[in-house]
Amino acid sequence: MSSLAIVPGQTRIGWIGTGVMGTSMCGHLMKAGFSATVYTRTKAKAQVLLDQGANWADSPQAVAENSDVIFSIVGFPHDVRDVLLGEDGALAGAAAGSVLVDMTTSQPSLAVEIHEAAKAKGVSSVDAPVSGGDIGAKAGTLSIMIGGDKAVVDSLQPCWEAMGKTIVYQGEAGSGQHTKMVNQILISTGMIGVCEALLYGYKAGLDLDTVLQSVSSGAAGSWSLTNLGPRIIANNFDPGFFVEHFLKDMGIALEESRRMGLSMPGLALGHQLYAAVQAQGHGRNGTHALQLALATLSGIDWKNRA
Amino acid sequence: MSSLAIVPGQTRIGWIGTGVMGTSMCGHLMKAGFSATVYTRTKAKAQVLLDQGANWADSPQAVAENSDVIFSIVGFPHDVRDVLLGEDGALAGAAAGSVLVDMTTSQPSLAVEIHEAAKAKGVSSVDAPVSGGDIGAKAGTLSIMIGGDKAVVDSLQPCWEAMGKTIVYQGEAGSGQHTKMVNQILISTGMIGVCEALLYGYKAGLDLDTVLQSVSSGAAGSWSLTNLGPRIIANNFDPGFFVEHFLKDMGIALEESRRMGLSMPGLALGHQLYAAVQAQGHGRNGTHALQLALATLSGIDWKNRA
Repeated sequence: MSSLAIVPGQTRIGWIGTGVMGTSMCGHLMKAGFSATVYTRTKAKAQVLLDQGANWADSPQAVAENSDVIFSIVGFPHDVRDVLLGEDGALAGAAAGSVLVDMTTSQPSLAVEIHEAAKAKGVSSVDAPVSGGDIGAKAGTLSIMIGGDKAVVDSLQPCWEAMGKTIVYQGEAGSGQHTKMVNQILISTGMIGVCEALLYGYKAGLDLDTVLQSVSSGAAGSWSLTNLGPRIIANNFDPGFFVEHFLKDMGIALEESRRMGLSMPGLALGHQLYAAVQAQGHGRNGTHALQLALATLSGIDWKNRA
Repeated sequence: MSSLAIVPGQTRIGWIGTGVMGTSMCGHLMKAGFSATVYTRTKAKAQVLLDQGANWADSPQAVAENSDVIFSIVGFPHDVRDVLLGEDGALAGAAAGSVLVDMTTSQPSLAVEIHEAAKAKGVSSVDAPVSGGDIGAKAGTLSIMIGGDKAVVDSLQPCWEAMGKTIVYQGEAGSGQHTKMVNQILISTGMIGVCEALLYGYKAGLDLDTVLQSVSSGAAGSWSLTNLGPRIIANNFDPGFFVEHFLKDMGIALEESRRMGLSMPGLALGHQLYAAVQAQGHGRNGTHALQLALATLSGIDWKNRA
């Protein structure tokens, strides 16, 4: 298995999926000196990277045929399955000794499946989902949660450092995805609290900015309250992180929980409330748009509140 | 109504309720130079303050008869009602121009009722619950959330400064209590997330301390996760803040929500899960003992986990 030395200017990087996140992340690798071959479903979305000198490939398989380390960050688990395990997927083109690195937030069990399939071909596989959003991707300050064989993960250190700030090895294959699920469970339930608290404060006639002064820095404080609370108050529901992606993540966490025999009442509630957010047409708003659906339960039109 | 000048060494302070919080808070006022007359249900619990030079009074009424500003911090709303509005309560002994300051976490509607009853006697009333727990009380760094007439609240500034660090006027009578309810709603739902996240991580076979490294500083971060997460992992469920008091607070928040016509599914879930924590005998543990009850749902004995 891989004892690949990862060296900028020498190691050939492949990148599959050039959305908002992927474009920034691959760009950081190129700035660090790696050559890149890219593929994405809609070629126009790769133009920024092509302009920066990346090579185009017509399929994930073709990316892998020209790369030593193949990164992917796509949409849903079925997309991950397609681009890595599909007929013209990356694994079909990956040489023995190369490495697949999936950075999509996806199923832990799929990460294990990919790891096993890759291993059978002498290919390494690492799951490395991130948090920090488009801002963290652009700034190169992502939190990267990593699962896979430790020696392989360690060898990729120059890549991790180009993209992230909080880089933590979490254990064997699937552990990166499981850690990301922990992250999403925290956000889901915490966001219910933020939205209900602001709804209560509003209905009680309090000035919400003044309330935040009292509650933000103590035991009730959180990143969501500090960063998204003011946007909720200001009726700014731009993403941040899309509701429709978050809903996908919660679905994965619930499915894994069921598989592991866990009862997760808070996560289940969060999932259902976010289903309402999506049903009400806010799938492309930020996660804090939970406030809009939550308020409707009490007959309140949040954006047009008094 | 009060245009009382509050001056250490001159203004006479009364204090009703000398539990862990009250003893520290009254002690700070005495250190700031105020004389104090105290009453508490079990006289032995006042001994620390009596040793520091406080005077004893045999009833809340007697406290008020000897004080210009009468503070209270007791257990439940019915205790607040007893010590302030009861037959030998503080209001019965309060002179016109004096001020009642209830710092118990209690019902916003009761705070309004006390304010009206006091007003009818020419007495001022302020609701000023706190957060920050026994540590904040001891250090004089509490967050104090204040409702009442602004001029009265402002005149008490030397008292607030002796006890707290984050001192915020939230509006008319009841607004302090409402703000504290916002605080508790945030904690309740956030704690579900912390506990479910750690339960998931444990069952997924992750090292929980390592998981915290990945998720604590980003969008999933919170005071509860950073401060109580490590205690949950270490099986240390000492209070902090008692489950039985927290359960009382959530009950108040739900009752006020119902009164205001609000649907609060996360808070309701939190309330019911904490009812389980209490039912399982953990009422005198800290709020993070939610983990113990939550784990039982999945048949896991958290303290004796593998």
